[in-house]
Amino acid sequence: MAKKFLGIHVIAELHGCNPEILNNPELITQILLKAAKDAKVTVVDYITKKFEPQGVSAVVVISESHITIHTWPEIEYAALDFYTCGEEDPEKAVREIAKELGTREMTIFKATRGNISKIKKILKQKKENGDDEKNEARAKQIQVLL
Amino acid sequence: MAKKFLGIHVIAELHGCNPEILNNPELITQILLKAAKDAKVTVVDYITKKFEPQGVSAVVVISESHITIHTWPEIEYAALDFYTCGEEDPEKAVREIAKELGTREMTIFKATRGNISKIKKILKQKKENGDDEKNEARAKQIQVLL
Repeated sequence: MAKKFLGIHVIAELHGCNPEILNNPELITQILLKAAKDAKVTVVDYITKKFEPQGVSAVVVISESHITIHTWPEIEYAALDFYTCGEEDPEKAVREIAKELGTREMTIFKATRGNISKIKKILKQKKENGDDEKNEARAKQIQVLL
Repeated sequence: MAKKFLGIHVIAELHGCNPEILNNPELITQILLKAAKDAKVTVVDYITKKFEPQGVSAVVVISESHITIHTWPEIEYAALDFYTCGEEDPEKAVREIAKELGTREMTIFKATRGNISKIKKILKQKKENGDDEKNEARAKQIQVLL
């Protein structure tokens, strides 16, 4: 079956995590890089930032898109994203990261991105109508409270 | 009114963009950094990566979380994220970025992240039950096709 979308983006809300791990930039970087390896994605580069008095942000750029985490050790919460256009569903890697962080409860939101039939349709419309249609970008909006 | 969540994450699907802009890493970096400035967030660091034969990934870490973009010039598509725990809703900045990229059609998905009442509830449960409850992280899952 042909692919229907370019990628899968998992957005995870991690609650009741281990605050010491959430405040350790080296350990968090190591956990994300291991997850990238396990998910068979290719790491391009990464940034880790420790905030004062607490909190870590880590971003891993992968050839297939990105992995990001932002942590709030004081409330044992972390916001994790794993977005990949590779062949592997990142959900398994997200669960592994959650486990490493001692997560007690997690909400996963999964979005498929880059709807291929929609991309083709809009390319076709643009080819037919040229650039004459200078309307401002139309936006459909969906909202979710995680 | 007290804040109900820590941050807002806008996920945008950009269709029918200008392929030359989508393939220009310097310009894309400049557009994201300008958007960060306009949205009054603080840039910590950034990574831009140009892929061959085409495509750009750019990630901007901000004190308030992150801005990311991944582009497919050959199909005039880009996947944009702006996640901030600052006071400003990032939707305006996302629309500005879309405009700069010559976007013809856009889908915006907006998620509020870090539900404060849920965070407090789980912290309270953990305090009452200790670490005895060693269940694997429960996960509620939501799926959306953008």
